[in-house]
Amino acid sequence: MKTLLKNARILKMDGSEIFFGDILVENEFIKKIADKIDVKADKIIDCKGNLLMPGFKNAHAHTAMVFARSAADDLSLHDWLFNVIFPMEEKFKKNDIYHLTKCGLLEYIKGGITAAFDMYFSPKEIIKACREIGFRDVILATSTKESIDEIRNNYLSLNKENDLISYKIGIHAEYTTPYERIKDIANLVNELKCPAYLHIAETSSEVDDCIKRYNKRPTVLLNELGYFNYGGGGFHCIYLDEEEINIFKEKNISIISCPGSNAKLASGIAPLYKYQEKGLNIALGTDGAASNNSLDMFKEMYLASTLQKLMNNDPSIMDGKEVLKMATVNSAHAMGLYNADTLEENKLADIIMIDLNSPCMQPINNIEKNIVYAGSRDIIKMTMINGRILYYNHRFAKHIHEKTIYSKAQKITNRLKS
Amino acid sequence: MKTLLKNARILKMDGSEIFFGDILVENEFIKKIADKIDVKADKIIDCKGNLLMPGFKNAHAHTAMVFARSAADDLSLHDWLFNVIFPMEEKFKKNDIYHLTKCGLLEYIKGGITAAFDMYFSPKEIIKACREIGFRDVILATSTKESIDEIRNNYLSLNKENDLISYKIGIHAEYTTPYERIKDIANLVNELKCPAYLHIAETSSEVDDCIKRYNKRPTVLLNELGYFNYGGGGFHCIYLDEEEINIFKEKNISIISCPGSNAKLASGIAPLYKYQEKGLNIALGTDGAASNNSLDMFKEMYLASTLQKLMNNDPSIMDGKEVLKMATVNSAHAMGLYNADTLEENKLADIIMIDLNSPCMQPINNIEKNIVYAGSRDIIKMTMINGRILYYNHRFAKHIHEKTIYSKAQKITNRLKS
Repeated sequence: MKTLLKNARILKMDGSEIFFGDILVENEFIKKIADKIDVKADKIIDCKGNLLMPGFKNAHAHTAMVFARSAADDLSLHDWLFNVIFPMEEKFKKNDIYHLTKCGLLEYIKGGITAAFDMYFSPKEIIKACREIGFRDVILATSTKESIDEIRNNYLSLNKENDLISYKIGIHAEYTTPYERIKDIANLVNELKCPAYLHIAETSSEVDDCIKRYNKRPTVLLNELGYFNYGGGGFHCIYLDEEEINIFKEKNISIISCPGSNAKLASGIAPLYKYQEKGLNIALGTDGAASNNSLDMFKEMYLASTLQKLMNNDPSIMDGKEVLKMATVNSAHAMGLYNADTLEENKLADIIMIDLNSPCMQPINNIEKNIVYAGSRDIIKMTMINGRILYYNHRFAKHIHEKTIYSKAQKITNRLKS
Repeated sequence: MKTLLKNARILKMDGSEIFFGDILVENEFIKKIADKIDVKADKIIDCKGNLLMPGFKNAHAHTAMVFARSAADDLSLHDWLFNVIFPMEEKFKKNDIYHLTKCGLLEYIKGGITAAFDMYFSPKEIIKACREIGFRDVILATSTKESIDEIRNNYLSLNKENDLISYKIGIHAEYTTPYERIKDIANLVNELKCPAYLHIAETSSEVDDCIKRYNKRPTVLLNELGYFNYGGGGFHCIYLDEEEINIFKEKNISIISCPGSNAKLASGIAPLYKYQEKGLNIALGTDGAASNNSLDMFKEMYLASTLQKLMNNDPSIMDGKEVLKMATVNSAHAMGLYNADTLEENKLADIIMIDLNSPCMQPINNIEKNIVYAGSRDIIKMTMINGRILYYNHRFAKHIHEKTIYSKAQKITNRLKS
């Protein structure tokens, strides 16, 4: 299958400038990028000067949690978690997560997100949903219900080259994981020589409690256990001290920031500018729809930039171009997607088209900054994942039955709420 | 002309709950709202369960400033204003503001904004653009170039009932207006018995400078001159002290907050929760695309809520439902649009349709909160202003020639930048 995308502005996100040209996609790969490509193709799309760029990578998500979207707002964190979320999750039946994941994936695709780093129960159901839709998912199975053997087997079987699915290792968080389990996962990390992830420093009380328990801060505890010997990432990272920041730098651990979720739950603002100055890899994620409530990388980019300007009382910091890199290249690297980070020949064809004829993109002064400061989901004209067009001109591909997916998700949600 | 909108969820924004029903629009008015309406109509639209609600009102805008969108980012306020904006504005020629305003109006319409409170030069050009497109605009001409007589004449001639255009009186700001001019406008306010507006308390240095000049804070100065004897509004209002808040309350002055612009320029966060507790009317605006950079009420609503949660360290405050009221009813009242605030019989038909089949609106748990916390421009399915459909199913009405408008705006922008 060959798809030729013609007459486009092209933003490779490899540091080079935007230029006019064509892209030839063959099966799941970008075959050629050039000023002009003339070949026979199964499908030719005239991009009419619109922008092609790498899709957004959502580096922290709980996709299936769409069931609690706008069902648990304006509550304290404790009431939110214990009185709404946990009681709903207790009612899960087989296939619920499969159906709910599909509902969340549609939001990603419509918003130009071509991959997610997905932490939730039932990896098998998540994988089924992603394969069926054609979505690239990095699975982070952190449930304590899975045995170390199961995790090892998943890791060894699910990390095939160029597959839509890959698999990472982690724990949910220090404060939700028994010490023995943290040690077991740290040992597995060192056996498999793989990066490791977790929620960390999302609230100040979580850090205080860790100090009470272990007489050290979470990053220090984990580092001493060898948890970060092969890098990895921390989700949220609002309350890291200097020692922890240095460990992040030394061990090549990504900061995976979720400014929308942190704002709505009043958890705080991660000091991204400080992390940027330290040279850390900063990635962006939406978190789950239970807290955020939208799975929208435009919102995360906007907040990642403007909250730093506000917090540091300096409008000149956190340039939009740098933030666009966070939502694409940096997030891809945090997720281990080194083959889907930029638009380059022989890389995976995870490409989006930005509609530059949207009013919010007019007039054209600075496309990259404009995407970050003025863009919203309505400027996504096409989403291609693994060489396959899943969304184009306001329509999902034929194999995606939106109404059935919504109706299933609604039925499940009604049961979980009842 | 009769338009019948059938099978909709209807959110009147008058305090009542969402219900299923039909709306009959006749010429510019809502003629009937009922569970079921069976009449002959020139146009019948099956809303298929999607939501009809009042359009968003953008209570602070400089529409024509789209020319500087993403042309002046990541700069200090001083560099932004003196090195980019002012030099560009000096190059304006006749009709530039007419063409640029049209470009900005398309963004409003695509984003479900049905009226704007528009402060910029050349009211005649703005009016021409709005009438041609069919957009409801409240003109706030604050240029010191206009004589008091001109302003009086405009006020008396442009405030006709049910017209698309109305006209309000104000000054740009205390710090940009000579004392004699402030007094003249205050006298005119008292002669015409009309509300008055201005930029106020946007930065702390602006307040400090006023104290140095007059030995009093801006609100106190203006109030003593009788500027607020008939109410009105203040744009931005980040740095009001208790005395000023009391004057706002006593004189029925609206807070018109622009959280996006204030964040991007690092001006600060207006204490909206405090103003809400004092019972002030809080309205929302986008400010101009030179600073924000998008003219998007979804962004303003999201920030109005979540920045207060963050700032007050309390996720339970600034409920999305209240914020939705700010962007519609409260903004309409701040702009004097008492006949276009809610969906009621005999009110003006400024109606939008929200696509509830967008993934970000699924599943349906709480529609109002979901619009604020998860919505974005992509959920706007229809925008009707004054009974006329200007946008439907991703297309503008036939009389709106997008490409010509964009091309004119681009040409002007290139000249202003050169």
